Amino acid sequence: MSKINYSIAIDAMGGENSPDKVIEGISLFLKNKNNNNFNFNIFGDKEKILVSLKKFNIFSLPCYKIFHCTTKIEDKNSVRDAIRIGKDTSMWKAIESVKNKESDVIISSGNTGALLVISKLILKMIDGIDKPALAGLWPNFKGTSIVLDLGANIDFSEKNYLDFSRIGAELYRVIFKKAEPTVALLNVGSEEIKGHEELKNAFHTLQNLKNNFKFNGYIEGNQIKDGNTDVIITDGFAGNIALKTAEGTANFITSEIKKIFSSSIFSKFCYMISYFLFEKIKKNLDPRKYNGGIFLGLNSLVIKSHGSADAIAFYHSIKLTSQILEGNLINIIKSNFDNDKN
Amino acid sequence: MSKINYSIAIDAMGGENSPDKVIEGISLFLKNKNNNNFNFNIFGDKEKILVSLKKFNIFSLPCYKIFHCTTKIEDKNSVRDAIRIGKDTSMWKAIESVKNKESDVIISSGNTGALLVISKLILKMIDGIDKPALAGLWPNFKGTSIVLDLGANIDFSEKNYLDFSRIGAELYRVIFKKAEPTVALLNVGSEEIKGHEELKNAFHTLQNLKNNFKFNGYIEGNQIKDGNTDVIITDGFAGNIALKTAEGTANFITSEIKKIFSSSIFSKFCYMISYFLFEKIKKNLDPRKYNGGIFLGLNSLVIKSHGSADAIAFYHSIKLTSQILEGNLINIIKSNFDNDKN
Repeated sequence: MSKINYSIAIDAMGGENSPDKVIEGISLFLKNKNNNNFNFNIFGDKEKILVSLKKFNIFSLPCYKIFHCTTKIEDKNSVRDAIRIGKDTSMWKAIESVKNKESDVIISSGNTGALLVISKLILKMIDGIDKPALAGLWPNFKGTSIVLDLGANIDFSEKNYLDFSRIGAELYRVIFKKAEPTVALLNVGSEEIKGHEELKNAFHTLQNLKNNFKFNGYIEGNQIKDGNTDVIITDGFAGNIALKTAEGTANFITSEIKKIFSSSIFSKFCYMISYFLFEKIKKNLDPRKYNGGIFLGLNSLVIKSHGSADAIAFYHSIKLTSQILEGNLINIIKSNFDNDKN
Repeated sequence: MSKINYSIAIDAMGGENSPDKVIEGISLFLKNKNNNNFNFNIFGDKEKILVSLKKFNIFSLPCYKIFHCTTKIEDKNSVRDAIRIGKDTSMWKAIESVKNKESDVIISSGNTGALLVISKLILKMIDGIDKPALAGLWPNFKGTSIVLDLGANIDFSEKNYLDFSRIGAELYRVIFKKAEPTVALLNVGSEEIKGHEELKNAFHTLQNLKNNFKFNGYIEGNQIKDGNTDVIITDGFAGNIALKTAEGTANFITSEIKKIFSSSIFSKFCYMISYFLFEKIKKNLDPRKYNGGIFLGLNSLVIKSHGSADAIAFYHSIKLTSQILEGNLINIIKSNFDNDKN
């Protein structure tokens, strides 16, 4: 079977150490010959991009085009400023190329708020979906869950929970090839009476509706790790706080361990003896494997790479993007919501 | 200076392994002769309590009274059921003894929802405070923060944020003896425009009001660990999810490390060599040191010990209770809110 060709629009200027980390991330992705059906439309400072392309030995490859942009959106820009200075920036032009069907998706490490607002402005919502969700991968004892919304929406209605359950289930199915994913709502207890009104209404609707997933009811924050639920739905406020608190806790614990294992000559010796074990732990828990926030609900796919992510993390966000493109997710979501009209 | 005597009402029947863990916790607390100004009013099954008191060698001490109760509230009871069967239970009678001034505080490992609702019913709110908060200790790189609300209130108004900032600051001052604690609001970003209306209104009020603390603005979930803010204020929904997600993440990481260090004979050897380092890490990160949810805003102090906590954890909740009592917290909070009337 011949493979479909995809074009990925890359905002080469967002985040720290760009465009180097972005171009190196692309070079890592292209090392796998199975990925030769992906082309890159690279938006940003042409001179800097050319230097990077040479540095990471992909200058001579035929699979990219450079689109020179004179400016870029900074992390410190407010969303309003970003829109004002937007039209000549690498982010804006990359999103526009998706709208113009020159690209199938955009990946950016830039300003999250700006990326979300400008994407919504240019790409528009899928018919039937009220708000975009920010979804992310979350490691657990059995593999990986998907959690959404991780911060795109502060105000949340019952319909948002229902929409995001359907979107999240389709996303999980495409990435992990599971026919009937399980979905649960994040709450402060498992009893039906817990939580605020919108959440409780969503619970009752999800219990009684036929869905494209199995509904697991409520789960609490400490149950995400168990891996008994594939897709966890939460409002963007609690979801963002949960994600960042989890990141902070992981950092706190690993820092404490590092401190103890470097506190004396003996402890450094123990570390050296156990070096390969620590490397294995580091590899298993490497957050770079989970890099890539997935904006869903728009007419095209938008991927947000972590601003401080390095080349390996950026590579993982491209890999994730390729899986979602090859799974044809956006069309699946569109037809899922299209059925509501019938 | 002669010390003030305090009476602690103990619900001896709540949580797992009660009354053994409760009585053992008391015995650990009484090992410190400086604690001889604390008496215990122990509520529960008299026969079982007597067996425990003998088992942990405090049977012959003069510092306790037993109040036999024929029944107890189970974790599985709904709050409504708990109130219905309540009046003869160890939890209810212990709270009542606080109301009747026979005790200064109640500690229970029982059903959290029931403890909160029955305490509010019997002890009533302090004049000027709308809702009770559930506060907890949270380890960070520099020591310990206090986070509230950890789940007592799902719906949250601007006034709740303001009240809890003042209550939290007084609590921190009493426990950690810091004249001017720092307080921040937990949010999804540090920009002023982020977050929902009640939170933004609270931010502006706290910026412009003279308070009994230094206001640090917003912090995000990953900044709690930094220890730059002493008291973190959040609504009970996000706070509970943050706490439980942090617990889940800590469990996930430590389990992964245990798995790797027991995966082969060599890795078990590395673990043995590093045994004392792992013991030190375990001690540093021991969650039992942070056991004790503090219900604040009621006319008396109510302490919730974790249901699955063991004797050492229960001991820590008694120790925390003794610090708060000796710091005269409830009267300080009352006079703080009393000043509003003038």
